[in-house]
Amino acid sequence: MKKHANRPNILVVNDDGITAPGIKNLIEVAQELGNVVVVAPDGPQSGMGHAITIGKPLRFDKVDLYPGVEMYKCSGTPVDCVKLAVNKIFKGQKPDLCVSGINHGLNNSINVIYSGTMSAAVEGAIESIPSIGFSLDDFSQEADFSHSKKFIKIICEQVLANGLPPATLLNVNFPKGADLKGIKICRQANAKWAEEFDERNDPYQRPYYWLTGVFQNFDKGEDTDVWALENNYVSVVPVQFDLTAHHAIPVLNTWNFDV
Amino acid sequence: MKKHANRPNILVVNDDGITAPGIKNLIEVAQELGNVVVVAPDGPQSGMGHAITIGKPLRFDKVDLYPGVEMYKCSGTPVDCVKLAVNKIFKGQKPDLCVSGINHGLNNSINVIYSGTMSAAVEGAIESIPSIGFSLDDFSQEADFSHSKKFIKIICEQVLANGLPPATLLNVNFPKGADLKGIKICRQANAKWAEEFDERNDPYQRPYYWLTGVFQNFDKGEDTDVWALENNYVSVVPVQFDLTAHHAIPVLNTWNFDV
Repeated sequence: MKKHANRPNILVVNDDGITAPGIKNLIEVAQELGNVVVVAPDGPQSGMGHAITIGKPLRFDKVDLYPGVEMYKCSGTPVDCVKLAVNKIFKGQKPDLCVSGINHGLNNSINVIYSGTMSAAVEGAIESIPSIGFSLDDFSQEADFSHSKKFIKIICEQVLANGLPPATLLNVNFPKGADLKGIKICRQANAKWAEEFDERNDPYQRPYYWLTGVFQNFDKGEDTDVWALENNYVSVVPVQFDLTAHHAIPVLNTWNFDV
Repeated sequence: MKKHANRPNILVVNDDGITAPGIKNLIEVAQELGNVVVVAPDGPQSGMGHAITIGKPLRFDKVDLYPGVEMYKCSGTPVDCVKLAVNKIFKGQKPDLCVSGINHGLNNSINVIYSGTMSAAVEGAIESIPSIGFSLDDFSQEADFSHSKKFIKIICEQVLANGLPPATLLNVNFPKGADLKGIKICRQANAKWAEEFDERNDPYQRPYYWLTGVFQNFDKGEDTDVWALENNYVSVVPVQFDLTAHHAIPVLNTWNFDV
């Protein structure tokens, strides 16, 4: 990794793969802000959550896609990419910022837990790197990321200037379209997926199943990311990786565990 | 799924695969408590976190391993197993309890986020099913699960009797050995993995990397799961899946996002 004395070092990752249009747009913003290193999966890794590769080895190769950008493709998951970047490229000298995305598709509400994009940013935060995941409400390969770029820049600038509260990161989602009203700081909406499995038979008459589902929002709050996006705001949710339900500890301490 | 009027319906899942000794031990405890349905991966899925399978279809087949137990193996992740169980077996009529494990190896502290065992339990909780993940500090296929079984039974009985606080589940870890002092309700310790990548060359002189690492505990607290396990207690951590860092919202609301 080349050092630039006065510019921040920025690690760019994603889960849609190194050739996705979303990461190209994120690289363009990152280049305006600092010295960019990209480590991204060599193919789609959507829905990989916080998976890591432990049962097989990883491949990791330098590639040359965009002028002046140090880039590596990795055979593993988005979280593997962050681990490799920290250990093999930055060699313990942490980047100043880790940005993930721009994901093709929303990662609002409960989707944060399934998302490879967000899990890469979570891994950055576990490594004490200020980290942000970005996602756009458009799955298309022709998605228009242009309207999100000025917001990405200001959010990154603010994080570089202020830092983030300890053990937190940001989950930023963009509505589709140009008519963005501004940024709303939100909480994650209480919502989930109702699964439906599309059952088919293969040519040998053996069944197989495609996971599909319907997003169900149970949350009427106007302080949620779902509400913000439906009302054309950019949603920013602070995320934590300490999963302890601290409020439940006193409840459990009243239980009788005598064996 | 057969109905038993007076016995709870219990879904058993894991991440080590349907033939692992750990799930056999968990099935034995579950059979003492209720009517058991097992849906587990057809092979090892350790470290899969909250990954779901969306780029390829799933296979899902009934198997007959243990007398009187309804069992299915699935080609997908631990979270896929829970989704398939809820949708295709229980058909929306939720089980009364979801238990995951017993994992071969600890899932204390930050490991909760990488663990397929715990992510399956998290998915159960997202589906509003009282859910518990169990893990033992022994990676061996010959691990001795016998000392954990009476604790698993009492914890399941307490959850069936009391329910769990909304949107929470339990992460239960067992020290190795017979000398267990009892149960401690804990918080997740502040710890992480320091990665090391073991670099090797394949027979064609191309490099590949094995992910390895060293567990680093930064937490001196005596209320953590790491402390409890080191002191021969069974650790019970209440876990939540709302990842919002609520305490960071007021901080972010002071930032200037003018574009």
